[in-house]
Amino acid sequence: MDKFKSQYLELVAKTNDYLHNRLDNMEKYPKIIFDSMEYSLFAGGKRLRPVILLATHSLLGGDMRESLPLAGGLEMIHTYSLIHDDLPAMDNDDFRRGIPTNHRVFGEGIAILSGDALLNFAYETMLDNALLYPEKILNHVRAIETIAKAAGIKGMVGGQVVDLENEGKDINPDTLQYIHDHKTGALFRASITASIMLEEPSDQISNALIEYGRSLGLAFQVKDDILDVVGDNKKLGKNTGRDKDKGKATYVEKYGLERSWSIASELIEGAIGQLDIFGLEAEFLRKLAKFIVERHN
Amino acid sequence: MDKFKSQYLELVAKTNDYLHNRLDNMEKYPKIIFDSMEYSLFAGGKRLRPVILLATHSLLGGDMRESLPLAGGLEMIHTYSLIHDDLPAMDNDDFRRGIPTNHRVFGEGIAILSGDALLNFAYETMLDNALLYPEKILNHVRAIETIAKAAGIKGMVGGQVVDLENEGKDINPDTLQYIHDHKTGALFRASITASIMLEEPSDQISNALIEYGRSLGLAFQVKDDILDVVGDNKKLGKNTGRDKDKGKATYVEKYGLERSWSIASELIEGAIGQLDIFGLEAEFLRKLAKFIVERHN
Repeated sequence: MDKFKSQYLELVAKTNDYLHNRLDNMEKYPKIIFDSMEYSLFAGGKRLRPVILLATHSLLGGDMRESLPLAGGLEMIHTYSLIHDDLPAMDNDDFRRGIPTNHRVFGEGIAILSGDALLNFAYETMLDNALLYPEKILNHVRAIETIAKAAGIKGMVGGQVVDLENEGKDINPDTLQYIHDHKTGALFRASITASIMLEEPSDQISNALIEYGRSLGLAFQVKDDILDVVGDNKKLGKNTGRDKDKGKATYVEKYGLERSWSIASELIEGAIGQLDIFGLEAEFLRKLAKFIVERHN
Repeated sequence: MDKFKSQYLELVAKTNDYLHNRLDNMEKYPKIIFDSMEYSLFAGGKRLRPVILLATHSLLGGDMRESLPLAGGLEMIHTYSLIHDDLPAMDNDDFRRGIPTNHRVFGEGIAILSGDALLNFAYETMLDNALLYPEKILNHVRAIETIAKAAGIKGMVGGQVVDLENEGKDINPDTLQYIHDHKTGALFRASITASIMLEEPSDQISNALIEYGRSLGLAFQVKDDILDVVGDNKKLGKNTGRDKDKGKATYVEKYGLERSWSIASELIEGAIGQLDIFGLEAEFLRKLAKFIVERHN
């Protein structure tokens, strides 16, 4: 295994261990809601947002034990959004990550509630952690506030709304950009801004990382759109062509496959370019950017 | 108008003004989600939780300007839970507070998302406020954490889950107690604990207020069950008999109408008894307890 891959898997393992511990420390009643939360939380996600948060926090000299609950919180928020997104009234998806979606297993009522539970639990988790660092509590509150903003109406939820409202419509490039920038981009950027809030690096370093995150988020979405057309159902764990079936706005539909590939590549080159000031220290984040366009799922 | 009523209406007006200002300071795009959030947030709720929070905070010598964003956040959380509770996959209610439920007006997808938006926005609002009080930020984080716990899996959401799972089943008194204690009681208690976290009164005062809040929350729920049987549809703004139709567990179904009335009265007497240590200062909270069993909606 190459070095990048082993580092990546180590951060995934840290995140998974943290999430398991956090849940296993509770009395799991009512059982069905814990089953439902854990079903989606441990369905084999790539843990990209926690990995980005932990890696940038470490690059800034932070101790990952301090940021792990924020990474876990981010993943809970991401998971809640997927559970709600898959509901019949939203994207109406039957499969995700190769297994039936949450509401197909637990019913719509429990799926709605387990999304709600994950969202509340994300905040509870991050706030509990903040209380462990009284000398840095302002930093923690700023980090959690950044995540709340990114998750909410002016971030991810806003993107979900515009996405839902535009299904089956011919949309302009600005709207497409808005959807991706908010629905996916906001949490990607927050995973970097949260680390910045914790460690308060110089403006030059902050700006470079923020730009890196912005490009990364967009590239991730373009690659997602590409995979929906050329991806392998088995590797993706869901059916391809779903975007087109649902009349979803995508980069591929708007710009064609070839142009979408070059947009993704340009974005990743741009992201990597931002990392020059870190020298060799940022090797993991460079590889991570490449991984995001080269991934098969 | 008597003194209690005018004081109550003043706290409601403060809460409403705060919520309006908070939303009006934002660019309301995507418009539909703001329309949907505001539709339910300003549908004429009693604002009981904010009123309790503001009144106890003031009783403890706090400045209401400091706690108003927490009161607003609590009301956003309460409103999100009503929107999700009314969905077809949950209680499937068509009317609330005399007007069609959120999903009947905006569709299920937007109703789910506006609940999510309100929940995230509640945390963003309370965290933004915490940052305005750096010298008391630990108190604020403890208050928000208390609210998060009360809203989540071990609080309100837990109660919703057990309620949903037991529809149409014959349930035992412990389960009925669990549902009410969590689904309604948790946020009631949090509206008091949050004030305690902000002002750190003595244990004696804290315990008295916590007991007051516990009895109040339970009495509120017993009265809700009574109103579902003997209430006036017009005053309630929703149809009576819905609990029975849905096979919901209620106090009235379990103990009969007469015993339910005496349970509610005993709880309120108990709540009022806790306030003795405050003397005349707690007159508003005494009247509030009476109001909770005497209300018609």
